[in-house]
Amino acid sequence: MKKIAIILSGCGVYDGSEIHESVLTLLAIEQQGASYRCFAPNINQHHVINHLTGAVSEDETRNVLVESARIARGDIEDITELYHEEFDALIFPGGFGAAKNLCGFALDAENYQINAEVLVAAQRFIKADKPLGFMCIAPAMIPLIYGEDVQATIGKDRDIAESLIKRGLAHVDCEVGDIIVDGKRKLVSTPAYMLATSLVEAASGINKLVKKVILLS
Amino acid sequence: MKKIAIILSGCGVYDGSEIHESVLTLLAIEQQGASYRCFAPNINQHHVINHLTGAVSEDETRNVLVESARIARGDIEDITELYHEEFDALIFPGGFGAAKNLCGFALDAENYQINAEVLVAAQRFIKADKPLGFMCIAPAMIPLIYGEDVQATIGKDRDIAESLIKRGLAHVDCEVGDIIVDGKRKLVSTPAYMLATSLVEAASGINKLVKKVILLS
Repeated sequence: MKKIAIILSGCGVYDGSEIHESVLTLLAIEQQGASYRCFAPNINQHHVINHLTGAVSEDETRNVLVESARIARGDIEDITELYHEEFDALIFPGGFGAAKNLCGFALDAENYQINAEVLVAAQRFIKADKPLGFMCIAPAMIPLIYGEDVQATIGKDRDIAESLIKRGLAHVDCEVGDIIVDGKRKLVSTPAYMLATSLVEAASGINKLVKKVILLS
Repeated sequence: MKKIAIILSGCGVYDGSEIHESVLTLLAIEQQGASYRCFAPNINQHHVINHLTGAVSEDETRNVLVESARIARGDIEDITELYHEEFDALIFPGGFGAAKNLCGFALDAENYQINAEVLVAAQRFIKADKPLGFMCIAPAMIPLIYGEDVQATIGKDRDIAESLIKRGLAHVDCEVGDIIVDGKRKLVSTPAYMLATSLVEAASGINKLVKKVILLS
């Protein structure tokens, strides 16, 4: 049975992991006969967004690991406990948390950094020649993880794609139900809610991504 | 296209809506060619549980509507805006929020009450002869909504079943992949994470519930 590590970034599209994408990823992994374990960095979220109003909750602080635990029903570990030897692949669901907590793309698209623990975890999988999957805005981390000229997609948003191309990403436009595969690097990406207007649409690309990541592992 | 109203109770299994159940419900509705809108009461949660440790976060207060908005990607309305005339059916996902925020079963199984707005919303659907679906622990609300001798399930937990039988529920044991239908009342229930040990298991019963609720509408 293939084992997939999932890195979450909170719980909620605007300040954490996109919930539908995360759940659809876990479901797809099970449906493919594989298993998963969830991880997240033990850091504070960049901020808390009231998902009803869209406003920043100025006085609130939430922790990425603690909030990610909601999606994982409590069954989650600190990313420092993620040992690539125990897994066949690594997948990042999307949501703004990937671009606010795991890296800073949503805050400064020109000079953003990536969380050091996330970087170390991802690079260990790459060094071990294990596949990685990125969905939605999570590919914003790719230039900082892999370096330049790596093929991936965030869908078809021209402005966001241009920002990432400036950082060295070989961006490829992609429909919601499809995936982009950089075969040389065993790297798979899909737009998910960068384009999806429904769960069924999001699932169409996510299912393909999960299947391909497992196939490459 | 059939329209389903969903009532959420927060965002996270221990103090709100069970996230997997909620997302699987929305997915199943779309897959059945129906549509949904989400609602929640605009009240404070009973409490906030740290889902990593299981402990109560004593100093935190969260609002049921605001947190439910995370599952709904911001697309949610106050339950006072729920007009049954606009829908064909009503579904309650589970999670402790259903038994802590929508009603008080998890806090006092002998003398619990139900939120007045939830009661009014549910009874309007019943009066209009429209089907309702309850999953996981949400059937704890059934005796307070329908009165006695109504058939439903919370799975196979003897203690919880006995508590509900004392309140008048005609409890029927049920496997995770199955549903209990009280045909006279167009009422469908399934154990979901009362018994599920995986998303695939939870989905098996939830998909049947959603299909049956739509069929009865």
